[in-house]
Amino acid sequence: MSLWKALEGSRVLDLAQPMRKGMPQSPNHPPFRMALERRHGDLVRPDGGSAANEIIVTGGHVGTHVDALAHVSQEGLLYGGRPAAEVMSHAGFSDMGIDGFEPFVGRCVLLDVAAVHGVATLPAGYEVTPDDLERAAGELEIRAGDAVLVGTGWSRLWESGDDFAGQRNGVPGPGADAARWLAARRPRVVGGETIAFEHIAAGRGHATLPVHRIMLVESGINIVETMRLAELLDSGVREFLLVLNPLPIVGATGAPVRPLAVIA
Amino acid sequence: MSLWKALEGSRVLDLAQPMRKGMPQSPNHPPFRMALERRHGDLVRPDGGSAANEIIVTGGHVGTHVDALAHVSQEGLLYGGRPAAEVMSHAGFSDMGIDGFEPFVGRCVLLDVAAVHGVATLPAGYEVTPDDLERAAGELEIRAGDAVLVGTGWSRLWESGDDFAGQRNGVPGPGADAARWLAARRPRVVGGETIAFEHIAAGRGHATLPVHRIMLVESGINIVETMRLAELLDSGVREFLLVLNPLPIVGATGAPVRPLAVIA
Amino acid sequence: MSLWKALEGSRVLDLAQPMRKGMPQSPNHPPFRMALERRHGDLVRPDGGSAANEIIVTGGHVGTHVDALAHVSQEGLLYGGRPAAEVMSHAGFSDMGIDGFEPFVGRCVLLDVAAVHGVATLPAGYEVTPDDLERAAGELEIRAGDAVLVGTGWSRLWESGDDFAGQRNGVPGPGADAARWLAARRPRVVGGETIAFEHIAAGRGHATLPVHRIMLVESGINIVETMRLAELLDSGVREFLLVLNPLPIVGATGAPVRPLAVIA
Amino acid sequence: MSLWKALEGSRVLDLAQPMRKGMPQSPNHPPFRMALERRHGDLVRPDGGSAANEIIVTGGHVGTHVDALAHVSQEGLLYGGRPAAEVMSHAGFSDMGIDGFEPFVGRCVLLDVAAVHGVATLPAGYEVTPDDLERAAGELEIRAGDAVLVGTGWSRLWESGDDFAGQRNGVPGPGADAARWLAARRPRVVGGETIAFEHIAAGRGHATLPVHRIMLVESGINIVETMRLAELLDSGVREFLLVLNPLPIVGATGAPVRPLAVIA
Repeated sequence: MSLWKALEGSRVLDLAQPMRKGMPQSPNHPPFRMALERRHGDLVRPDGGSAANEIIVTGGHVGTHVDALAHVSQEGLLYGGRPAAEVMSHAGFSDMGIDGFEPFVGRCVLLDVAAVHGVATLPAGYEVTPDDLERAAGELEIRAGDAVLVGTGWSRLWESGDDFAGQRNGVPGPGADAARWLAARRPRVVGGETIAFEHIAAGRGHATLPVHRIMLVESGINIVETMRLAELLDSGVREFLLVLNPLPIVGATGAPVRPLAVIA
Repeated sequence: MSLWKALEGSRVLDLAQPMRKGMPQSPNHPPFRMALERRHGDLVRPDGGSAANEIIVTGGHVGTHVDALAHVSQEGLLYGGRPAAEVMSHAGFSDMGIDGFEPFVGRCVLLDVAAVHGVATLPAGYEVTPDDLERAAGELEIRAGDAVLVGTGWSRLWESGDDFAGQRNGVPGPGADAARWLAARRPRVVGGETIAFEHIAAGRGHATLPVHRIMLVESGINIVETMRLAELLDSGVREFLLVLNPLPIVGATGAPVRPLAVIA
Repeated sequence: MSLWKALEGSRVLDLAQPMRKGMPQSPNHPPFRMALERRHGDLVRPDGGSAANEIIVTGGHVGTHVDALAHVSQEGLLYGGRPAAEVMSHAGFSDMGIDGFEPFVGRCVLLDVAAVHGVATLPAGYEVTPDDLERAAGELEIRAGDAVLVGTGWSRLWESGDDFAGQRNGVPGPGADAARWLAARRPRVVGGETIAFEHIAAGRGHATLPVHRIMLVESGINIVETMRLAELLDSGVREFLLVLNPLPIVGATGAPVRPLAVIA
Repeated sequence: MSLWKALEGSRVLDLAQPMRKGMPQSPNHPPFRMALERRHGDLVRPDGGSAANEIIVTGGHVGTHVDALAHVSQEGLLYGGRPAAEVMSHAGFSDMGIDGFEPFVGRCVLLDVAAVHGVATLPAGYEVTPDDLERAAGELEIRAGDAVLVGTGWSRLWESGDDFAGQRNGVPGPGADAARWLAARRPRVVGGETIAFEHIAAGRGHATLPVHRIMLVESGINIVETMRLAELLDSGVREFLLVLNPLPIVGATGAPVRPLAVIA
């Protein structure tokens, strides 16, 4: 059977937040900016045609995006004990950059931790625990090479910028223990709805990022951040086909992506 | 059957060109630039961790990308007779921007015009005709809502920058007649390997863009450009599942994308 | 006598704020960002030489800068009743852009309104009045073609970002009456220490900008903003030579500048 | 006598090239780009007022600019034997950056080498020699701390982009011997009209930059590049007051500037 036949009747959900000036993002990264450069009417060709275009400034970790393994080091070392200095230059990273991320098209499991607690959105600063993940998984099997997303409901706050960024009250997310629980299942990629896939306590900011260390440096597992999971959480679907194809920016430590969930 | 079961044994081809400083692109758009902002070792946290990140400047029509309907107007009008001035502002386009492009996951037909002529790459400045498309299609059915790609082999020249851009000798691509042939089949999207999905004669540059007018303004069909089709052409596959999910940049006239071909 | 002889013994004060990521600026303009692109050691030539360089993203109204007449319109009209639409395109402004600002090298008068009130810094949200200006001027003559700066002491708050920007508590500056007082003296340029040369009341933001209208649109007088006047105010000097030479960015509505005060 | 009295009757010449998209610049640096972000009419306040603004992308060595000492290293060392690695980070250079350049307001001597050879513009690829400089100086004294500019007439070619950049035929400029001649006179700054203040032979590109090494690394003398000297050369004036105040971009290796010549 052809693949498009197999997909007939399936539904495609867009898991990316819209990218616009002023959207919530980490202050560590260049603020997103898009401006029209030419507008219709600026330059009209003799035949009456006109083209509009834009200039875009962004970072690799802005909007919905994938972290490359090159993003984080520990004691100067990247995943596999590779010294960061060996692969890092004006051209970016010659290894473990986002262009080395093979596009993912495969099974994805969604662990809805908000539902475990009977809420639509976890409280700011809540630390997701291994027990939360166990209960969210229930009978769902997690297989090596899968993608695993942790649902907190936080993407519902996208439009309330300061709360979403959590500079004051923190954001919900996995702590180090939950990260180890995830890594032990050997997924290819993990992800969530917050700017950083971390538990951030109130008023603490991104001082330490243990989940990034455990995933990227110790386990070689990529992270997807700032996903829009609200609709997926509401759908009740916990197992689906995920397409994850970040822009192939050579040598970058991360890149924006528009992930898709394909639901039978 | 689950979707990931259906895809078992399938192959995923990445149809995007890698994005790097100096890659071929149109002089009409902001030159792509990526620079590492922080490198490992710049800021080391007390726990020995360090993060690297980048700044990216680009245009919406740079690298492999999708043209939104808002990209081109004729006599001041966008698709459907909508006056461009009504939907255009500092925030971009309130309608027909790339964020309004629903991600495409569906059947794609590849018309290999190079093969029709028994060559790997069509000559610079060659105009693809309706007859070329008929012969390339052969028995392949084109259905309304499909994606249709026209293979010229031009993506093989990616590394030879000036030739690829074709400022001197032009590039192969559909002329107005071929565009009408395509539009008559009512695909959702069309695309190819060159910077502009147009026939550009030697020394002529992008003076007029009839295919853009026919597709975007007259027919409401989006265009994918600068695709990397070489491997797909070589594979002999002419029918596959295409995933096309450009970044959801609100109000933009186009956006980069990493298209995927999933082959049974 | 040669000019450099005439300047012997004079002192040069730098009136620009340092430009760096995170400095206070208006949210209406692209945030300033500078990143090293190449660092020493990235590319070493056979002779042992190496060069470092950077990428800079900014706006024309970021840091210490001059407003061009093209910056503000009223009912669609620029200074002199020129319709904005006539001179505005993708290339910027063909008239009244900052490249049309003839560098200023001439007499400058500093009106220290903070001193009038016996304080180093005026309170947030204080409106400078014609009477304040009269008293600050005292015996000082203001001649047509001079530059006139209004001292509020606000540049002392540069390092306390949120207070400086005044989003919450406002900033001190001239109201419409003070602007008319200034315009009546026909200076070539006026300026001050705040992000906008306006009185901004607490919590009001930049909702209306009467001083900009009076200066730029009605009087053809340019405005310098975000100047670092603290040292000059402390020096007691009220009359000096000002050099004001904003970057000649063709068609821009403003440009950064490093103004110099030369004091006998 | 007041300084502005001393300057009465003097003439101010603008020595900067206009900054616009597509202007000649080094391919090593981010291409200059300016786009209007908001245009008049995009956002009209209730009182009928409207503001326009822009986004600017540039490098520190783009357009008329000053090289900071941090720009070039030799065997990893900056001027004074300072290891580059000690002062270089994500924040730029903590020492010898362009923000550490004290604005120059002082005597400047123009050595017109083109006139020595009886031409308006030196030929592409011509190497300026110590003898040329001697003859151009004639009776003119060069004092320690002066600025010294070398006239080649090259700024007359600004509008003929490819010739100006000299990628094919090279550009005229001082060789290593001329650089030593200049450095021996201990000027504070030297400069010229070409993109790099170097002799570039036909077809050689910027492979080695001996003048940069001699000036920046060995002598601690800053360099001004891409100056517009044509009008000054034509005026016959060889001694004047120069104002040189590059933007104070913290930590940058260079910054744009609009230099002024004040002529008695």
